[in-house]
Amino acid sequence: MILTVTLNAALDITYRLPEIDWDGSNRVREVVQQAGGKGINVSRVLAALGHATVVTGLTGGDCGRAVRTDLATCGLRDALFEVDGETRRTVAVVDHRTTTILLEPGPAITSSEWISFRAHYDCLLLLASVVVLSGSLPPGLPPDAYRILIHQAHAHGVPVVLDADGPALLHAIPARPAVVKPNAKELADVTATRDPLAGAQLLHAAGAGAVVASLGPNGLLACTQKGTWRACPPGELPGNPTGAGDSVVAALALGLASEAPWPEQLLHAAALSAATVLAPQAGRFDADAYDRLLSLVRIEEIDPGHPEGESCP
Amino acid sequence: MILTVTLNAALDITYRLPEIDWDGSNRVREVVQQAGGKGINVSRVLAALGHATVVTGLTGGDCGRAVRTDLATCGLRDALFEVDGETRRTVAVVDHRTTTILLEPGPAITSSEWISFRAHYDCLLLLASVVVLSGSLPPGLPPDAYRILIHQAHAHGVPVVLDADGPALLHAIPARPAVVKPNAKELADVTATRDPLAGAQLLHAAGAGAVVASLGPNGLLACTQKGTWRACPPGELPGNPTGAGDSVVAALALGLASEAPWPEQLLHAAALSAATVLAPQAGRFDADAYDRLLSLVRIEEIDPGHPEGESCP
Repeated sequence: MILTVTLNAALDITYRLPEIDWDGSNRVREVVQQAGGKGINVSRVLAALGHATVVTGLTGGDCGRAVRTDLATCGLRDALFEVDGETRRTVAVVDHRTTTILLEPGPAITSSEWISFRAHYDCLLLLASVVVLSGSLPPGLPPDAYRILIHQAHAHGVPVVLDADGPALLHAIPARPAVVKPNAKELADVTATRDPLAGAQLLHAAGAGAVVASLGPNGLLACTQKGTWRACPPGELPGNPTGAGDSVVAALALGLASEAPWPEQLLHAAALSAATVLAPQAGRFDADAYDRLLSLVRIEEIDPGHPEGESCP
Repeated sequence: MILTVTLNAALDITYRLPEIDWDGSNRVREVVQQAGGKGINVSRVLAALGHATVVTGLTGGDCGRAVRTDLATCGLRDALFEVDGETRRTVAVVDHRTTTILLEPGPAITSSEWISFRAHYDCLLLLASVVVLSGSLPPGLPPDAYRILIHQAHAHGVPVVLDADGPALLHAIPARPAVVKPNAKELADVTATRDPLAGAQLLHAAGAGAVVASLGPNGLLACTQKGTWRACPPGELPGNPTGAGDSVVAALALGLASEAPWPEQLLHAAALSAATVLAPQAGRFDADAYDRLLSLVRIEEIDPGHPEGESCP
């Protein structure tokens, strides 16, 4: 079972309108709402691929209840931990021209809630083969929260895939997560270099077992103990990139669980990510496209001393 | 006790940001949420004025629960009727330049829920001196829903103040509500005339006991069986007009309960409305300003055959 942890779970609300009047009243005909937060999205992908997964993290209040109702509706195993604060909402307002995202901060977590959650998480680790730690930290948690959760996982011999950014990512690296998956901007922000290969090498040297950077149209760049690879999708893909990174994380968690060789892991991760961009609904993947893409993604080993080219052709 | 009915109650969410990026992600630091819907806002004003009031209407789901939690926090008497659907949200996104309002449609009400609500409402009418019917109808209700509720009130000898628009207003007029309170646009929409006096006379002739039109900076125009009046606020007021109409309705409900003469009712309604515009928080009124404005609002009787001037000076 792959355990995903979403410390700042969300109720994702999408309003779709023909054209928004930015300085007036808009009647919204189409309201879509679902459980969100990166770890929950990873579990959604894993479940769709037929793999056993359990969702944990922190939820509370009426929005937390709505999150749990949606998980139940989707048949996702819910081991969320209840807190007193109110789970955040994210609101996406989409018209034919723009997409506006509004992100609430999330509930303030007390220190006793954090202590109790760690005990709850410790119990879930007994059943997990891989842990995915994903997304932002809610207010009140220490910046090294992910470092603490990685140490707990390692005490149970469970490897960790980490998808975080900023201080939460930096604090966690010395705890040696098996894989970290920053995107280009997150990697540049924490390493202060615009060169993804140099950035990935820095995080790898600092303690990450492997660094898999998701570079949008430039595919994936993996810096591991076994070698350095690039996975290139077949050209620019039209579609919605929302959730493509969560699909990469899902594939990497499966690769870690099965101990697949890196080229195979990256092939699946790049194909699943591209199939997510191609699916009409954000965060879902097109299963047929995934199958087709497995023969179209190119995997290239890179000599880190002499990298040829900066990006996919 | 004044009973307010909000058939399409709402959870009003306000996001305040320094500057919105309309085509990107925005972290919202300030989230305010409260029970909303016009009838609930009227009860809030009545309670703040020290009058007994009870909130009824339809709520459901997690957002309905949040609405009821807020009413309890504010000490408002909650006699809402629970339905299976999910109470709507309204989202106001405010930055230094614009205010964007997004209105969800509301829960679909089944015919058996509507039947049960009417029985519940009938029981509440035993305790009411005045009923306020206010705001939009949720999906599933018949367009003559307000007509039915007015007939029920009259069967108990309880007079009705109605604040509705469009077909909901038109269908209700023949049931002879004691007072209707359209704003300028709502009045123009249902009467197809831009002249507020002509429009008010039309609705009065069609069955409304009195028509009090709220005309923004031009104050109030009242067309009643006892005469026609204009109430003028002292010049243009800086502030937030949200909820000013609900304050007018609250004052008219109190006037109806106390059988105050029309000039006195209109004086209070115009002063309370202006004090609501002046208050920093939407839907609240400035109590000191209310007292001061009572001596500044001018009430003028109009000869409907020879109205002098179209608006307040």
